[in-house]
Amino acid sequence: MQDKLKRLKKIVGEALELQRVAAVLDWDQQVGMPVAAAAERARQTSLISCLAHEKQTSCELGELLESLVPEMENLDPESDDYCLIKLVGRDYKRHTKVPSEHVAEFSHLTSLAHSKWESALAGSDFLIFKDSLTRIFEMRREYAEFFAPYDHVYDPLLDEFEPGMKTATLIEIFDTIRPLQVELLREIAARPEPYQTCLDNKFATDKQWQLANLAATAIGYDFNRGRLDSVVHPFTTTFNLNDVRITSSAKVDNLTCISSTMHEAGHAIYEQNIAESLENTPLASGVSLGIHESQSRLWENLVGRSHSFLEFFYPKMQSAFPVLQGTSIDKFYRAYNTVKPGFIRIDADEATYNMHVMLRFELEVAMLEGSLAVADLPEAWNAKMKEYLGIIPPNDALGCLQDVHWSAGLIGYFPTYALGNLISAQLWKACRMKFSNLDKAIACGRFDELRKWLGENIHCYGSKFEPMDLLKRISGDGIRPEIYLKYLREKYSAIYGL
Amino acid sequence: MQDKLKRLKKIVGEALELQRVAAVLDWDQQVGMPVAAAAERARQTSLISCLAHEKQTSCELGELLESLVPEMENLDPESDDYCLIKLVGRDYKRHTKVPSEHVAEFSHLTSLAHSKWESALAGSDFLIFKDSLTRIFEMRREYAEFFAPYDHVYDPLLDEFEPGMKTATLIEIFDTIRPLQVELLREIAARPEPYQTCLDNKFATDKQWQLANLAATAIGYDFNRGRLDSVVHPFTTTFNLNDVRITSSAKVDNLTCISSTMHEAGHAIYEQNIAESLENTPLASGVSLGIHESQSRLWENLVGRSHSFLEFFYPKMQSAFPVLQGTSIDKFYRAYNTVKPGFIRIDADEATYNMHVMLRFELEVAMLEGSLAVADLPEAWNAKMKEYLGIIPPNDALGCLQDVHWSAGLIGYFPTYALGNLISAQLWKACRMKFSNLDKAIACGRFDELRKWLGENIHCYGSKFEPMDLLKRISGDGIRPEIYLKYLREKYSAIYGL
Repeated sequence: MQDKLKRLKKIVGEALELQRVAAVLDWDQQVGMPVAAAAERARQTSLISCLAHEKQTSCELGELLESLVPEMENLDPESDDYCLIKLVGRDYKRHTKVPSEHVAEFSHLTSLAHSKWESALAGSDFLIFKDSLTRIFEMRREYAEFFAPYDHVYDPLLDEFEPGMKTATLIEIFDTIRPLQVELLREIAARPEPYQTCLDNKFATDKQWQLANLAATAIGYDFNRGRLDSVVHPFTTTFNLNDVRITSSAKVDNLTCISSTMHEAGHAIYEQNIAESLENTPLASGVSLGIHESQSRLWENLVGRSHSFLEFFYPKMQSAFPVLQGTSIDKFYRAYNTVKPGFIRIDADEATYNMHVMLRFELEVAMLEGSLAVADLPEAWNAKMKEYLGIIPPNDALGCLQDVHWSAGLIGYFPTYALGNLISAQLWKACRMKFSNLDKAIACGRFDELRKWLGENIHCYGSKFEPMDLLKRISGDGIRPEIYLKYLREKYSAIYGL
Repeated sequence: MQDKLKRLKKIVGEALELQRVAAVLDWDQQVGMPVAAAAERARQTSLISCLAHEKQTSCELGELLESLVPEMENLDPESDDYCLIKLVGRDYKRHTKVPSEHVAEFSHLTSLAHSKWESALAGSDFLIFKDSLTRIFEMRREYAEFFAPYDHVYDPLLDEFEPGMKTATLIEIFDTIRPLQVELLREIAARPEPYQTCLDNKFATDKQWQLANLAATAIGYDFNRGRLDSVVHPFTTTFNLNDVRITSSAKVDNLTCISSTMHEAGHAIYEQNIAESLENTPLASGVSLGIHESQSRLWENLVGRSHSFLEFFYPKMQSAFPVLQGTSIDKFYRAYNTVKPGFIRIDADEATYNMHVMLRFELEVAMLEGSLAVADLPEAWNAKMKEYLGIIPPNDALGCLQDVHWSAGLIGYFPTYALGNLISAQLWKACRMKFSNLDKAIACGRFDELRKWLGENIHCYGSKFEPMDLLKRISGDGIRPEIYLKYLREKYSAIYGL
């Protein structure tokens, strides 16, 4: 058995190395590659991805699994080896269900669709993107059919990003939070806007980068095993345990570089603190996008937008930006947490963010099911924006074209953002129950208790346990939307005097 | 035949993509990777290199060559296809002569040797590196034996870097230039040092980077298809025709950032101007290190250290560094071309540079032949330094440990630096005969005639023709050392009043 396991580790280890090489190529493309080289880079990335896919679906791997799976009963279900065989088995089943012709065609389709989307976004013209998007949804339906029978056609797609999650569960969760978040927004809208003029200023981007660096370091991102670069669309990427890189962007009109960097640092702290024993195996990465997003959103919002954090950090912001020196921390805290329905998801405040996610979820499910024609997307988008946030985008660039996800074929991804929000509040609650002085520690710039707790309860496990099992281990429960709703209501009641 | 050719192109194209992916990994490592990630990156690079080697030596490639080579007689010997089959055939023969166990062992050896060398250099202690270097020379001898019979044991190694060049020819060339360069240095040493205090200043590195950028742009490096980054040891790397990157380094104590950047830009201009029709084939790269170095040295020295170039560029240097404003261009020109025997090859002036190269060539041949024991290298090194340059390094860090090459197993590489110098002067002469106003154009900052001429006569061909064939096409002759010697003597006679 040990020999077979060793052989299995070698194959999946090499597949992982190749995926990480592809990640280097992608990082390089986004951080500094000359635009002129896009076509050649696409070819390189595609070649590496194909080689990874070959390894992931090799006959030898199948044979190894066939002889190893029966032996799992002799292993401790919490052991690394047990979890590895289980995960590799699950992935192998998924990868081999899809014919390689389909994989190649879909990769080609999305590569072209991305350019179409870019043109459509630049010209704010949905028609340019319509045919590509139509084909993407067709092919995603074909993909789902490889996994038939399923409870819902969306399930096989969702499972890629949030293993084990079902569409029916999602619908239930969203049906719970939707009316309550709409009601909260209605109440907030009826109140006067908080003092906000302090944010109507110009903030030099070099100072923002210094603050972002400071914040990331303070919360525990290890710059000795990573780096921070400037990009258009921020992301985090893992090349290995000793090289987890974050990216961010800074605009002179606002301070989002700081929160965006804390968000990405949250992702990276997760990846940097996976147990070393899991390195070079598929267990060495965050277990799902929902859990990942719970980490990034926790550091960005529950920590980064809290009064305690500002007690620590606002004086540094005031030193960097003297224009803030006339504004008290309490006024700044309210301004920094202003709720204002807007068109763009990534700029959304905590109270409106989930509304953007639910809108996308509902539309993509409808397009996948066929109940909404892709051609009718812009109209449907705008109708839901009106319904959920009371505003209608003046054009498609600010509407249904704003996100890159669909052009990349990522259907089933969006809901994990909302799951991340919900989970972050559950973790926050659990941690605060354990450490009564958490707020005080944060106000003093000490984040190690929180980070260690997350490390010991989530990070170290990598992908050993399924996401909901992991959540249950920590919080004793599955997803409990009411905890997030309570957090939101308490926070905004204080700010808006609801 | 077309089908087979297509298949061959696909295989070698994929091998090339993989090598270029390895180049991305290497660039990233040198430009910004966290040091902590070195071991993991070595594993990634090694995996990609193995995959490339598999493709380069695949049975299918052998079979394709077997059936394509006889058909070459139906092709125009100057056609892309003819040249491609010829090159692929040559490389295949070379790659398959070496057992993959040898390749793997040597890769492992040099990977470890590199760390040993780094420690040895840091502590200036040759003993740390001695055993690794001994084994490297042993394994390089084994490698040469795979190519027996040979005229000289050094030939198979040299051939990797300078295809077609023979050790006997090199010895002949070096026997010609050695006494004349020694004599030139003796005469220069007898003259007073030129006015040099203008270079004994501090030069802010950000200004140097601006000037370096300006110089690279001016001579024709296309930043839209590349970028310039800061590293410890400058190099140029090609990811594809649209992404050829240069690196440089700046020190506040001197102005070498400018010449170093022009050197790398010279390499890159070569790679950026290879004919598009050759892209994605092994023909799409510079043909040999000697020809490559002729490009970099030409732009660095024959252009970059010329009086004409300074007429264009010195005013810009004076604007950037007001401390230079009291120094006339004639004085600066002499200071910028000071001849001073030093310990370090990469800092050497034009008159001493080849001496450093010949020293290394002679020592590596002796160690390969076994006439010099690796253990005796430091002593032999110092003796030759005394003989050729009249100085003895105070320690091995400034002596036999200074270069990275041997630790990486690159035996046979050094002589190409000297070949590059010789060839650069031949090209320079040929171009000046064609364009009588070249000096004036350069003094006005116009480099397009020269660059176009190099593009049409060298760059566009990539690796289509063997290096010496290429040189013959342009200059009507093989290597003619006396042309370089004449250039040196004329230049330094004017500066030193010989």
